[in-house]
Amino acid sequence: RYFHFCKLPGRVMGIRLLRFTSVVIIVLLLVAGALTALLPNIKDDKLPNLRREPKPQSQSALDSFTLIMQTYNRTDLLLKLLNHYQAIPHLHKVIVVWNNIGEKTPEEMWNSLGPHPVPVVFKVQSVNRMRNRLQNFPELETKAVLMMDDDTLVSAHDLAFAFSVWQQFPEHIVGFVPRKHISTPSGVYSYGSFELQNPGFGNGDQYSMVLIGAAFFHSGYLEDFQRQPEAVYALIDETQNCDDIAMNFLVAKHTGKPSGVFVKPVDIRNLEKDTNSGYSGMWHRAEHLLQRSYCVNKLVNIYDGMPLKYSNIMISQFGFPNYANHKNKM
Amino acid sequence: RYFHFCKLPGRVMGIRLLRFTSVVIIVLLLVAGALTALLPNIKDDKLPNLRREPKPQSQSALDSFTLIMQTYNRTDLLLKLLNHYQAIPHLHKVIVVWNNIGEKTPEEMWNSLGPHPVPVVFKVQSVNRMRNRLQNFPELETKAVLMMDDDTLVSAHDLAFAFSVWQQFPEHIVGFVPRKHISTPSGVYSYGSFELQNPGFGNGDQYSMVLIGAAFFHSGYLEDFQRQPEAVYALIDETQNCDDIAMNFLVAKHTGKPSGVFVKPVDIRNLEKDTNSGYSGMWHRAEHLLQRSYCVNKLVNIYDGMPLKYSNIMISQFGFPNYANHKNKM
Repeated sequence: RYFHFCKLPGRVMGIRLLRFTSVVIIVLLLVAGALTALLPNIKDDKLPNLRREPKPQSQSALDSFTLIMQTYNRTDLLLKLLNHYQAIPHLHKVIVVWNNIGEKTPEEMWNSLGPHPVPVVFKVQSVNRMRNRLQNFPELETKAVLMMDDDTLVSAHDLAFAFSVWQQFPEHIVGFVPRKHISTPSGVYSYGSFELQNPGFGNGDQYSMVLIGAAFFHSGYLEDFQRQPEAVYALIDETQNCDDIAMNFLVAKHTGKPSGVFVKPVDIRNLEKDTNSGYSGMWHRAEHLLQRSYCVNKLVNIYDGMPLKYSNIMISQFGFPNYANHKNKM
Repeated sequence: RYFHFCKLPGRVMGIRLLRFTSVVIIVLLLVAGALTALLPNIKDDKLPNLRREPKPQSQSALDSFTLIMQTYNRTDLLLKLLNHYQAIPHLHKVIVVWNNIGEKTPEEMWNSLGPHPVPVVFKVQSVNRMRNRLQNFPELETKAVLMMDDDTLVSAHDLAFAFSVWQQFPEHIVGFVPRKHISTPSGVYSYGSFELQNPGFGNGDQYSMVLIGAAFFHSGYLEDFQRQPEAVYALIDETQNCDDIAMNFLVAKHTGKPSGVFVKPVDIRNLEKDTNSGYSGMWHRAEHLLQRSYCVNKLVNIYDGMPLKYSNIMISQFGFPNYANHKNKM
């Protein structure tokens, strides 16, 4: 908020009033300064390589996150989820990416049901594209983005913990849905989950991607996404799929490490069966998984190599929900 | 293995034989060079601050660890555990710290039962001190130390995974036994585990120490330990306890972060009831836990502040032992 100065000539107002105004201003500045000193320490931004244009750094911009939720044909689920997500701790703002082309947003109804804990912005799109959610939105003020699908409910506890984990791994995609690729003797890659063969690095399974439909990542990656080869956008538009695989390629290439850190969710639910719209989501299409394998191979061509790396680190919250969930036989 | 050269004068052997020998040597060198090119990449050492004197950097020194096991009055357990631990993947060498003063080590018997997978060194001590295991042993060639109590059995799977985790967090104590301190309104600290009140940073519990009796840490910390205030050694000697708490203080002070990373063990067992010696370990002494709270407060005095920091990160292995241990309701 900016203070308006009434620029009245000093001679008219009088020196006395000028002096009084100056004193008030000085006192207010001192109070503001004292309040600032009481704020908790700002955490360092550990990502000098992400070239985000410098914005005024408010305290909340570093210790909070922006929820970006794209929505298509499931406004009932969207509103149900917004009621939940608007109250998550450390949430700064919600950006709803409105893919219902030509349809009015529920902004009027939203405002009539205020006040709300945080601002919610409805971004009307001109074309229904999967990659609309990966724009570098000017409304985005925080370093962290939480991206959620419009049919996914994750508990506040999970989100608060995962956000704290992201703050310790800010260059990674920190989220709840792990996936992997495997290579085959022919050199062709396949995409999948636990049902696929383990990649064969010792015991157990590995993951090489964390899906962005339920994850935290650095907002700088949205900026980086705008600078990818055209073929990437063409691929995502052709399939209306794979934007998340592309983001994992981008992050892995940037860091030279596994793109994601998997946080095991305590309570994550898919609400798509609860929708009145009858629309059940892209992943039900028959060709969905085949498309994703196709995308992995195309992206390897586009990026001239396979940048994804494997990880087998699974993070849970110590002592939650069971206060002794780390107990062992010792 | 080194090749012995027979240094016979050329005139006696003949120029032809010399030439043949040279060709053989060159071919062998080329083969060795080709094999080296097939070896996996050496991981970078990420700890420039730990001032360890440069030793010849062999491949194994970076990708393997040294087991340091101190033993007192439980030789039967020691030998049972050595049979297990000598075969752990990535183990470079074992250093047994022999605290049985005046008693012969089992070295003869050990050698008679060879060959063994790795070298085992018995370090005879002159005084039975808890902190004997924290010496900067000249036999130590690896960056990583695995320290185990002589009554603790951890599965090879757990150790292989925890070692890979340590390689990603080399400045932390990566281990299987988390503990915490809590502060009280009086300013006096208390030491304990899950039975103590949560420190109160959001949901769930926190830990601020990882005990070194079942953990990996960087060998540079042994060097740092030699440079601590005399009062630290006096405290450990006075209590015959708390060397692990002191190490956590040291690491936390060095990194400014939580000292430990907790890896949840799948299979960890305490074998002390299996010993024939009747000796049941220091932690059964009535004053054991009180001593440890005492140590926390003394160390805060010695270090002029509380350097320990809390963490609630609990790491497990993705897809092991249950190949779909990350599955959720989605």
